[in-house]
Amino acid sequence: MLTPHHDGSPLYVSQAAPSAGDTVSVRVRIPHGSRVGAVHVRTAPDGEQEFVTATRTHRDDVESWWQAELVLHNPVTHYRFLLEGGPDGAQTYRWLNGTGLHPRDVPDAADFRIVTYPGPPTWATGAVVYQVFPDRFARDSSVEPVGDPGGPRTDLPDWATPARWDDPVEETMAGSQQVFGGTLDGIGEHLDHLVDLGVTVLYLTPFFPARSNHRYDAATFDAIDPILGDPESLARLQEAAHARGLKVMGDITTNHTGDAHEWFTAALADPSGPYADWYVRNPGAVPGATREWITWLGVDSLPKLDHTNPAVRDALVSGPTSVIQRWLQPGAGLDAWRVDVANMTGRYAGTDVNHEVARSVRDAVDAVAAEHGTEPLLVAEHVHDHSADATGAGWHGVMNYSGFTKPLWTWLRHEGFAPKFLGSPVRVPRLGGELVAETMQEFSAIVPWRSLSHSFTLTGSHDTTRVATLVGGEREQIVVAAGLLLTAPGIPMICYGDEIGMPGNFGEAGRRPMPWAAAPAAPGGEPVDPNLWDEELRTAYRDLVHARRNHPALAAGGMRWLHAEGDALIFLREHPEETALVHLARAAHPPITLPAADLPGASAGASAYGPVVRTDDEGDLALAADRPQVRIWTWRTTAPTWEMIA
Amino acid sequence: MLTPHHDGSPLYVSQAAPSAGDTVSVRVRIPHGSRVGAVHVRTAPDGEQEFVTATRTHRDDVESWWQAELVLHNPVTHYRFLLEGGPDGAQTYRWLNGTGLHPRDVPDAADFRIVTYPGPPTWATGAVVYQVFPDRFARDSSVEPVGDPGGPRTDLPDWATPARWDDPVEETMAGSQQVFGGTLDGIGEHLDHLVDLGVTVLYLTPFFPARSNHRYDAATFDAIDPILGDPESLARLQEAAHARGLKVMGDITTNHTGDAHEWFTAALADPSGPYADWYVRNPGAVPGATREWITWLGVDSLPKLDHTNPAVRDALVSGPTSVIQRWLQPGAGLDAWRVDVANMTGRYAGTDVNHEVARSVRDAVDAVAAEHGTEPLLVAEHVHDHSADATGAGWHGVMNYSGFTKPLWTWLRHEGFAPKFLGSPVRVPRLGGELVAETMQEFSAIVPWRSLSHSFTLTGSHDTTRVATLVGGEREQIVVAAGLLLTAPGIPMICYGDEIGMPGNFGEAGRRPMPWAAAPAAPGGEPVDPNLWDEELRTAYRDLVHARRNHPALAAGGMRWLHAEGDALIFLREHPEETALVHLARAAHPPITLPAADLPGASAGASAYGPVVRTDDEGDLALAADRPQVRIWTWRTTAPTWEMIA
Repeated sequence: MLTPHHDGSPLYVSQAAPSAGDTVSVRVRIPHGSRVGAVHVRTAPDGEQEFVTATRTHRDDVESWWQAELVLHNPVTHYRFLLEGGPDGAQTYRWLNGTGLHPRDVPDAADFRIVTYPGPPTWATGAVVYQVFPDRFARDSSVEPVGDPGGPRTDLPDWATPARWDDPVEETMAGSQQVFGGTLDGIGEHLDHLVDLGVTVLYLTPFFPARSNHRYDAATFDAIDPILGDPESLARLQEAAHARGLKVMGDITTNHTGDAHEWFTAALADPSGPYADWYVRNPGAVPGATREWITWLGVDSLPKLDHTNPAVRDALVSGPTSVIQRWLQPGAGLDAWRVDVANMTGRYAGTDVNHEVARSVRDAVDAVAAEHGTEPLLVAEHVHDHSADATGAGWHGVMNYSGFTKPLWTWLRHEGFAPKFLGSPVRVPRLGGELVAETMQEFSAIVPWRSLSHSFTLTGSHDTTRVATLVGGEREQIVVAAGLLLTAPGIPMICYGDEIGMPGNFGEAGRRPMPWAAAPAAPGGEPVDPNLWDEELRTAYRDLVHARRNHPALAAGGMRWLHAEGDALIFLREHPEETALVHLARAAHPPITLPAADLPGASAGASAYGPVVRTDDEGDLALAADRPQVRIWTWRTTAPTWEMIA
Repeated sequence: MLTPHHDGSPLYVSQAAPSAGDTVSVRVRIPHGSRVGAVHVRTAPDGEQEFVTATRTHRDDVESWWQAELVLHNPVTHYRFLLEGGPDGAQTYRWLNGTGLHPRDVPDAADFRIVTYPGPPTWATGAVVYQVFPDRFARDSSVEPVGDPGGPRTDLPDWATPARWDDPVEETMAGSQQVFGGTLDGIGEHLDHLVDLGVTVLYLTPFFPARSNHRYDAATFDAIDPILGDPESLARLQEAAHARGLKVMGDITTNHTGDAHEWFTAALADPSGPYADWYVRNPGAVPGATREWITWLGVDSLPKLDHTNPAVRDALVSGPTSVIQRWLQPGAGLDAWRVDVANMTGRYAGTDVNHEVARSVRDAVDAVAAEHGTEPLLVAEHVHDHSADATGAGWHGVMNYSGFTKPLWTWLRHEGFAPKFLGSPVRVPRLGGELVAETMQEFSAIVPWRSLSHSFTLTGSHDTTRVATLVGGEREQIVVAAGLLLTAPGIPMICYGDEIGMPGNFGEAGRRPMPWAAAPAAPGGEPVDPNLWDEELRTAYRDLVHARRNHPALAAGGMRWLHAEGDALIFLREHPEETALVHLARAAHPPITLPAADLPGASAGASAYGPVVRTDDEGDLALAADRPQVRIWTWRTTAPTWEMIA
């Protein structure tokens, strides 16, 4: 039985990127039997409640559509629906917000939201991101590897420990010192791997000079670590990427720098000089006794930038030569930024200028866009409730660890492997689909649809357990994870190597060199070493990526849960052009009945869904699974029939 | 079965008014059988998750107490408990936040919160407020009434329509023009009524000159409407109030003034003069065609102040002669402010300086406090989700319509009377105790305990249906409403006349003259007209007010729901000195079993609760009701036995 639904997606809101003062139409669908007599929309312009009455604009055999016009008076308009008349027909009402129907008053946290900030890049809709850790993806075949213990080592800095490409990664603190010798030109040689997979964005973790292989401890923001290349190699990489339809995203830490950063060494060298106030000083510091500077989580080598100092913001964001803008200039190398530790940026004790920093970074990005007609994307790191930081005023989106990765982990982690999630003292539990869907729905509900759909979904990253290890190495389960990744709202991010089954039980351990030597010698061939390169998995990833890219419902549709229980998740993605029905099973499960009459193409009956769907006596669908699986059907408005695409 | 509990109240947090950088202890009680193996507390200093491990500090037959130390690094520290080990003992956890236990991840909205802003007035703990509409409470017996049609009318302004004290109130728009002739001195003559009732704060709706009897359209903030009195009569009233242990609270509109206000007339008179920018101009105004000024909800007579203009804030809040400060000066008349339309103040379209205004008003109030050693209270009007405005940085509290009044209405409104709540297009439903308690708990969860406990609880106000009409005029039901009002967390506000059963089916209709002529001729006597003056009800109010004032558990205890279903609400108020058990029934209901072993005094058995409590076979309590009722028991730490106090 379907319930009244709205989710802020294009099918339900007339404008995706409205301006201040615009009037937008918001629509809600009310299945018959919901006993709804009238519909109102509640907003709170200037902080005062206001109600707009909706009118019924459409009625068919299945449902009615109601519509109201909202004037976007404030930058953020939060709204929810008031459905008059309860199931018992009495003087009752229910609220419909992002977490569903509520028979009592609720606070505003799960209100739907429309914002009037400038819209995100158009290319981000349908984008699929491929995350690369530059030291580990590929060496440059044309030059001697700089990192091999046996090779030339003169140009390796003091902090680096050279490694052979097939050495194991160090799973200790020393891991950050290992240099395997991947380069930007090396990445450029393997772009066809990305194109084949179907991804559209190459996201590079930092390439700035630093004193570690992860380079989140930048020594400057103005150069490229010579171990990786130089400005020309980045420009070449971007040019090659663009030639293949790929965008390139960089990675910048706005919260802190490394202690080798030129700004910090200048601050240390001259305590009364121009850089003296660029970092947050420890207010309780006793010279010689306690630390003089505030650092990231107390790590001495990562001093925290003071964003209340206008000079810091000038250097980072103002003008075409600022850090944020210079790398986005045409030909400079980047089309987008991922912002590291965005959640802590500008926050310390009684100071919180985080939103001002985010706005200023956004303004800087928009300035480049306006001058050059480009559309840079900004996505911020965040690992817990990001609702306050993800309105879209600053970052276009965040890394949706809390609303996607974590619930995915609780559904799919192997019974024998319970990792701890980033910083948490407890192990990830294994939960049934009900709780998993509730978590996803609640975290989705607290941000505008536009922020949700421009946030990274990910099964893991360079900072976490890899999905292959998470699910106990079972290919079918990895495919289910990839299935959820590539059918959920957001911008899917694949961590390099996930597509071939690269393992890793925590962040450092998963930053392995890409095992090109294990790949099939020819396209379509068998892998040289199936233990290192799961070609069948790669095919599954490729199919799912292409399904997403080819189907607007998957790329940009709304999210409507149909069933979530134990081993099964079933939902619709609804788009003006198309509807997709997604059925994910983490294990075999008995048939789940869905009312065919509630779905498009009811008259065609269940047989329209193909042989895998059975029909019960009522003609309804019965979706079963005999193993872990991903099934996707789509229904196009222009060619109305169900098609099984996965 | 009790569940793990924490609520931010004094029993659970070591400091009620900590300072930045302080370390506070937070405690959680875990009943045996909860299968909790370890307890962590999760915070997010500077925007990054952090976990502190709690230790078990106490264990008895019933439960364990766990405690963790939190460093208050930011002005607002939000926290929740992570209870490791689920009911099944597996690798699971539950979160405990302000809405209870959750077996999955949850966003931060219902996190507990501790703030380091300066604490609210000490006198506010245990305060009970009595709201008076000055025109309607009492005339001054020593002078000729100004308002009677037959009396002297020379000093009534043009807008006013005189009324006799026993005239009916106009229930139309003309109602705001009726003047019944109540005065400040008249209120002073009846302070013993307040003292007898036991209230501790006299709250006066506005007394400024205006063009209506409600005076929310002030013509100046520097004078007292001569119809009501003069500065000396206000000073006399405060002096008399103080002599009886009462505080006096005024009412100021920060969002707008009347169009007769001296600032607005100056703005109109000289478009380039010093007041030209004191009000928000309509950005789309066409002279002569559309309105030139932004007004409150489009009401022409209420132009909106522009708080981005420093001159406005100077006049309102800066220095001892500012509006906010002058009336709080010793002897000037007021000890506190209620802030009208606080929720819209400083908000218009793309501008939102609401929190800055609230902070500046608070700073002004704190400046008076520091100079004179007084403790002014600030409570803001708010009728919906106030969580963003009620951190305690500005207002000490709000009018808790959303978390108290509205759910109370849904539980107690008469089956035959379904009013619409302030601005809502739908009628208030009648709901069972489950949904009522859930609503109260969820709205309580989204503000710091300190804001909750310093927010007004109310059954209604001069703006709404009165409680007597709400419940269909049934005295027993009014007492149940008063019982909830006087046993719930917050600062209870009684609207004058509620205690004698004054009716009113909406705001204007309830602003009736206090029927002194109907009162008993002598203390303890029979009322002259029981239809106008319900002396038995007044006794019930008096008993409940005194119970609250005499019992720290009711005045300042935490809130722990034990049972909420249909016709019954049962909860504990827990305080370091005392525990109170409250049982409210809106109708007769069969016995509800509570585990006596979980409550203080378990060894004494159910008999300790007195004859109204039965015991079942297990020795547990069985709380029944044979009619609408309020029952309160308290258990003092220093004299450990249950006492039935209502």
